[in-house]
Amino acid sequence: MNFNALHKLGYGMYVVGSHKGEKLNAQTANTVFQITSEPPTVAVSINKQNLTNEYIKASKVFSASVLCQTTPLPFIGGFGFKSGRDTDKLKGVNYKIGQTGAPVVLDNATAYLEAEVIQSVEVGTHTIFIGKIVAAEILTEDVCMTYDYYHQVKRGTTPKTAPSYIPPEKGGKP
Amino acid sequence: MNFNALHKLGYGMYVVGSHKGEKLNAQTANTVFQITSEPPTVAVSINKQNLTNEYIKASKVFSASVLCQTTPLPFIGGFGFKSGRDTDKLKGVNYKIGQTGAPVVLDNATAYLEAEVIQSVEVGTHTIFIGKIVAAEILTEDVCMTYDYYHQVKRGTTPKTAPSYIPPEKGGKP
Repeated sequence: MNFNALHKLGYGMYVVGSHKGEKLNAQTANTVFQITSEPPTVAVSINKQNLTNEYIKASKVFSASVLCQTTPLPFIGGFGFKSGRDTDKLKGVNYKIGQTGAPVVLDNATAYLEAEVIQSVEVGTHTIFIGKIVAAEILTEDVCMTYDYYHQVKRGTTPKTAPSYIPPEKGGKP
Repeated sequence: MNFNALHKLGYGMYVVGSHKGEKLNAQTANTVFQITSEPPTVAVSINKQNLTNEYIKASKVFSASVLCQTTPLPFIGGFGFKSGRDTDKLKGVNYKIGQTGAPVVLDNATAYLEAEVIQSVEVGTHTIFIGKIVAAEILTEDVCMTYDYYHQVKRGTTPKTAPSYIPPEKGGKP
């Protein structure tokens, strides 16, 4: 078994936002994917330790901004390697409050969607939230960043809380 | 709402295989994604009308071969626009029976994995199968095909049974 085969799976790069009352948070994610076309539904896998998981469970809504290929690494890191429990991750970031009440990050975003959770599934360390899409817009014609581009070209790394993290003892590369 | 925003989501391209007793089938899919890293689990969204859905429910196993960027369009179409009910889709294709008993397509594959289903979730027209990974290998160092590349460069199209299909009346492009 070669766990690095899992790094051949293809993903985009996203900032997923949610809220709990007036508190807002957002985090990077790579697992956002459409499940059905009619009605349009989308799923996202979020670590149970993450504040965004708590917020999605509280508000039953989430947003996902699709990052463009030119997104600077520090921007991604700011949403990926810090917790909203310790810092206001949206400070200094251009965003709007979407129709669901979730923050929709606009900086470096080429498109976004908002969804209302209709099902959620606990799978070990993560929750899969399945949402009905209630808003979706294209913002720019920019090329989207792929997870592969993030790793190969941007030399980005993966936090331990990500679905795709491979520990070094299993042959995972940084 | 612009449903074409959903086409900005990033995916790879896969052939997902399963079996029912000695009967084998496989189909193209774009929604294969890792859910947890410890233990490694992966999910796939498969239309309930598809024979592969029936086979995965029967055998509780599936394989996923990651297609390389140079995969010819007719190869993808052969697994995507035909039903295993009408034709033997694996005829003439290089594959092996994996350790789960599922067929693992090797032609045009840069990596593959096999999984045992631990949970499944019905979401409207589709089932999300969540599997524990029991085999995973890298086959070549080829670049993987992205769903975007399939559409933009290969001019590939999307069958109505795919999660990402957008009907023309909702602004979907062929």
